Amino acid sequence: MFEKVALIGIGLIGSSIAIRARKENLVGTIAVQSRRAETVKKAEELGLGDSYTTDPAEAVKGADLVVLCIPVGAVGAVTEAIAPHLAEGAIVTDVGSVKNAVVTEMAPLLPAHVHFVPGHPIAGTEHSGPEAGFAELFDGRWCILTPPAGTDPAAVEKLAAFWTKLGSSVETMDPRHHDMVLAITSHVPHLIAYNIVGTAAELEEVTESEVMKFAAGGFRDFTRIAASDPTMWRDVFLNNREAVLEMLGRFNEDLTALQRAIRWGDGDALFDLFTRTRAIRRGIIEAGQETADPDFGRHKKS
Amino acid sequence: MFEKVALIGIGLIGSSIAIRARKENLVGTIAVQSRRAETVKKAEELGLGDSYTTDPAEAVKGADLVVLCIPVGAVGAVTEAIAPHLAEGAIVTDVGSVKNAVVTEMAPLLPAHVHFVPGHPIAGTEHSGPEAGFAELFDGRWCILTPPAGTDPAAVEKLAAFWTKLGSSVETMDPRHHDMVLAITSHVPHLIAYNIVGTAAELEEVTESEVMKFAAGGFRDFTRIAASDPTMWRDVFLNNREAVLEMLGRFNEDLTALQRAIRWGDGDALFDLFTRTRAIRRGIIEAGQETADPDFGRHKKS
Repeated sequence: MFEKVALIGIGLIGSSIAIRARKENLVGTIAVQSRRAETVKKAEELGLGDSYTTDPAEAVKGADLVVLCIPVGAVGAVTEAIAPHLAEGAIVTDVGSVKNAVVTEMAPLLPAHVHFVPGHPIAGTEHSGPEAGFAELFDGRWCILTPPAGTDPAAVEKLAAFWTKLGSSVETMDPRHHDMVLAITSHVPHLIAYNIVGTAAELEEVTESEVMKFAAGGFRDFTRIAASDPTMWRDVFLNNREAVLEMLGRFNEDLTALQRAIRWGDGDALFDLFTRTRAIRRGIIEAGQETADPDFGRHKKS
Repeated sequence: MFEKVALIGIGLIGSSIAIRARKENLVGTIAVQSRRAETVKKAEELGLGDSYTTDPAEAVKGADLVVLCIPVGAVGAVTEAIAPHLAEGAIVTDVGSVKNAVVTEMAPLLPAHVHFVPGHPIAGTEHSGPEAGFAELFDGRWCILTPPAGTDPAAVEKLAAFWTKLGSSVETMDPRHHDMVLAITSHVPHLIAYNIVGTAAELEEVTESEVMKFAAGGFRDFTRIAASDPTMWRDVFLNNREAVLEMLGRFNEDLTALQRAIRWGDGDALFDLFTRTRAIRRGIIEAGQETADPDFGRHKKS
C-alpha cells in the first residue's frame, strides 16, 4: 500500500501502527523516529521498524506516508523540521486527539506538494511507550479524518483504506466538530477522572491506602483513564481549551442540579437521571464500542 | 457453617451469595425471598435456593443467618416485618453501600436475642437481578463489617469467616468512617459518572449517536458505572447525604482549580496532577483491586 512509512514518535499508537501494518503487509519499509535515543533503542530491540533515527528529517526522506504519533504540543516544531524533506505526493497525517489546533498549526508549514490529511484514531489504553503497542488496538474502533477543504480525495481515500486495514472504521469530519465531539466523549471524562483521583489522594479523613483498598466500588474505573500519558493530556487540554471549557461548563451546571437534588432529598430526580443513563450504556454496547461482560473479566485475579 | 440462610432480596448480590455459598457448602438450606413474585419465580428457575417466598417473615423463620440484600431505602420496612420472626441467636446482616443510616434505622427495630452485624461487600457490576449473580463476584474484594459497640465478637467472627469463604477479605470499621471512605471511592464516582452521561445525552452540538460511536475515548468507562441499578443508587445518595456532599464539595473545588489552569494555559499544573494520579493507579493494581491488562481485554470483539 505504501512503499515507506515514517512513524514520527513511537509510543502506544506508533508502535501499534507498526505492528499491525507489518502484520497486514501494508508497507514496504517502516522508518521509526523518536526524539529520545533511549526510545529509539527500545523500538529497535522490539523490531518495530526497518530503520531507526532520532532525526525526523532523516526518517521522512522518501516516505510516501508520514504519521506524526506525538503529543499535540509537539507537532509545530516537528512539522517545521520535516517540511523541507517531505517527498513529492507524500501523505502527511497525525494521530492527535485535537484537530483544529493541529490543522491551524501544521497546514501553513507544509509544502504544497504533499497531501495533508489529519487523523485521530479513537483508541488507546492507559499504557504508553513503544512496548505498549499491540496489533489489535484499533480493531472495531473509529478513526476520524479531518481533511482541510480542497484536499485530494484520492489521498483521503488511501489513508482511509490504510486505517481500515489496521482494523478501524473511518469517518471524516470537520475539525471543529471533531473537537466538540471529543471534548465530551474523551477530554472532559479524562479531566474529571484526573480530578477525582487527585481529590481522593488529598483527603485527611480517608487515607490513600483506604482509597486503594476499597477502589472496587467505582473509583478504580476512573484511575485507569487517570493513568494516561501526562504529556499527551496536558497538550490536549491546552489545545482544545474552548470546547473543553464549554463542555465542562455544562457538566458543572448539571452536577450542581444533582447536588441540590441530594441536599433536598429529591429521590425522583435522581432516579430519573439514573434510569436514563442506563439506556445510553446499552446504546454503546450495541454500537460495538464496549463489551457487556460483567466486570470486563476483572474478577479474574490479576 | 449455617443451617439456614435467608436471603431477603435476590438481585446481583443475593444471587452471587447463593451460588457461592452453595458451591462452598457453607449452608444447609437457602430461603430466597423477593418482594416481587416475578423475581421469586426467576430465582426458582435458576435454582438459587431451597425455598422461595415473597414473604420476608416466612423466609427468616428458623434461619441462623439473615442477609438483607435490598436497597438501603427498604431496610427499615423489611426489618419491621421480620423482627418478630427472627430466631434466637440468629445473625442479621445486610449488604448496603451505606452503613450509618442502616445501623440507625435497623438497630432499634431488632430484638435483643439476635446479633446485628451490618456488612458491605465492595463488589458489583452494572448488571442487576437474580440472573446477574456469579460465583466469583466477591473474589479478592473487600467486605466491610460495621458491628455496633457491644456486638458479640463470636457473631462478628462467624460472619467474617462466611465472607472469607465467599472469596472476600474482611475488615471491620466504624459506620461513619465507612460512609466517608465509600463516599470518595464509590458514591461520588458514581454520581459524576451518572452526571456526565446525562450531560452528554442533552447536547445540541453533538448527537447522541456520535457520543455512542466515539465513546472509546474515555466516556464508555463512565457509562459502565452509570448503568448501575437506579433504585439502589438513589437510596445511597439519599442515605449518605452528608458524606457525599462533603466529598463532592472537595471535588468541585479541585475541578474549579483545574478549569482555571486550562483557561490560563497553566500546563505545569496539569502535568503535575496527571503525573501524581498515575502513581495511584499503580497502587490500586498492587493492592490487587485492578488488573493491568491493557483495555481489560476490551479489544476482544464482543
